[in-house]
Amino acid sequence: MSEPEIPKDEHPFWFREPRTAKGCTLELKATRIVHSARSEYQAIVIFDTEDHGRVFTLDGLVMTTEADEYMYHEMLVHVPMFAHAAPRRVLVIGGGDGGSIREVLRHPGVEEAVIVEIDEMVIDAARRFMPYTASGFDDPRVRIVVGEGHAHIKEHADSYDIVIIDSTDPTYGAGGLLFTTQFYEDCRRALREGGLLSAETENPFYDPGWVQMAWRRLRRAFDDVRLYLGYVPVYPGALWTYTVASIGPDPQGDFRAADASKISRALRYYNPDVHAGAFALPNFIKRVLAEAGD
Amino acid sequence: MSEPEIPKDEHPFWFREPRTAKGCTLELKATRIVHSARSEYQAIVIFDTEDHGRVFTLDGLVMTTEADEYMYHEMLVHVPMFAHAAPRRVLVIGGGDGGSIREVLRHPGVEEAVIVEIDEMVIDAARRFMPYTASGFDDPRVRIVVGEGHAHIKEHADSYDIVIIDSTDPTYGAGGLLFTTQFYEDCRRALREGGLLSAETENPFYDPGWVQMAWRRLRRAFDDVRLYLGYVPVYPGALWTYTVASIGPDPQGDFRAADASKISRALRYYNPDVHAGAFALPNFIKRVLAEAGD
Repeated sequence: MSEPEIPKDEHPFWFREPRTAKGCTLELKATRIVHSARSEYQAIVIFDTEDHGRVFTLDGLVMTTEADEYMYHEMLVHVPMFAHAAPRRVLVIGGGDGGSIREVLRHPGVEEAVIVEIDEMVIDAARRFMPYTASGFDDPRVRIVVGEGHAHIKEHADSYDIVIIDSTDPTYGAGGLLFTTQFYEDCRRALREGGLLSAETENPFYDPGWVQMAWRRLRRAFDDVRLYLGYVPVYPGALWTYTVASIGPDPQGDFRAADASKISRALRYYNPDVHAGAFALPNFIKRVLAEAGD
Repeated sequence: MSEPEIPKDEHPFWFREPRTAKGCTLELKATRIVHSARSEYQAIVIFDTEDHGRVFTLDGLVMTTEADEYMYHEMLVHVPMFAHAAPRRVLVIGGGDGGSIREVLRHPGVEEAVIVEIDEMVIDAARRFMPYTASGFDDPRVRIVVGEGHAHIKEHADSYDIVIIDSTDPTYGAGGLLFTTQFYEDCRRALREGGLLSAETENPFYDPGWVQMAWRRLRRAFDDVRLYLGYVPVYPGALWTYTVASIGPDPQGDFRAADASKISRALRYYNPDVHAGAFALPNFIKRVLAEAGD
């Protein structure tokens, strides 16, 4: 059911998202409400804007926008993928908009890319209303599993070269289960030899506690854990942390730079210099990690 | 004249700053209005927040906040300073809050640090209400000139090792004069042998036109011009570009990393890895520069 177009510059609808509990709010002016639905899990609302293109929200929080989704998905995916010698089987947990799967499929060696998303209506909405983001779903290498990520991973020991955790924030719905020590240990067991995991781990300025929680718990499950940085303008704080955990390769110093250079010609954010530079952490972020505890 | 404290969580006052012309707005909740004055040039309003500490605004635009000013000032100052072999005479244009001068003074070799700020009331307000940011003003090495940056630089050929352009955005008041080709040429003439200039050059996602304008015009005046990146959460878009222009050293590959490492122990953002990594540009920013024209 489509909804009526909002007359431009006449009755603007403002989407308001509190960025912190203490008084920092982002407002985006919507030019058109594209889709509005309620699934078993959440309210899905999609609207158009002039600055950010089409915006995809769940329960009033921006999940992705047409204008900057590539920044997030390229950094979440290509850093672990190019750190692996030859990734063939890849798992994406969450990421129902499809952006991570689309980036995984750019790697010609990938034989199977599995996505486990809890909410089928998110996938359907992305297919209909964010076709570029969702463009990987019809690739024959993709298998879509509608279900819980933490259950799937438990049943797939020694199965994947790369696990990508494309979750919502830890306090949001089922997303919290994807930030537990148990889940990370199951992820480690799901990795094949030489495997890596990457996870989105939130903003270090406004939400240092979330960065620390993921850091602390991932380090309980993995020996080699590193934080790296990217930029996603519409996310709270815009500077985004990702955490990569490895049971083999050194994701910072030893990635496939020549392959990365070739594929990055088709990309809009990631390139080999960005890969190397993303691990350079400002002092305040080093301090956040140092204070994360064990 | 101090103003009454706003009762917390009762009658919050929301500061609203449009981040783009097309519908992206930031709101900050003020817990107390600290200072409100009108100078010959602009309205100066200072207020307290829970998330960003004390916030300094000019004509309704955030200039600096207690919580993140160090990120901006450290990156604007230390990149050119550590790229120079031995900076002794340094000029800051604008920067009336004092943050850039404070960072300049961390370098023990500095003999004179001149600041040219057009609005004396900005300096006075910073001294009174942002004492940490303004803490360098009373250093005996500092000379404060109240006047126009573009006029000062014209009269000081061959005078400075480092010129730091700590301006407002190009459309704001006198700030526009600090983004002209003529001004950049005068800056080049003001540099002594082996000198460098750095300038704040805005956000590449929301305001690529400003990044391009500075890039195009600086390249008319200098042979070696490079863009580097930092993070300032409260600025529009949060990813901040700085441009460094050199008449001698290579600011990216050949900075004093050992000295930087020593001084960065007292810093909260800058360190040698961040210096090197800041020059790694995502593809979309490379494209912004490639399309800047001559």
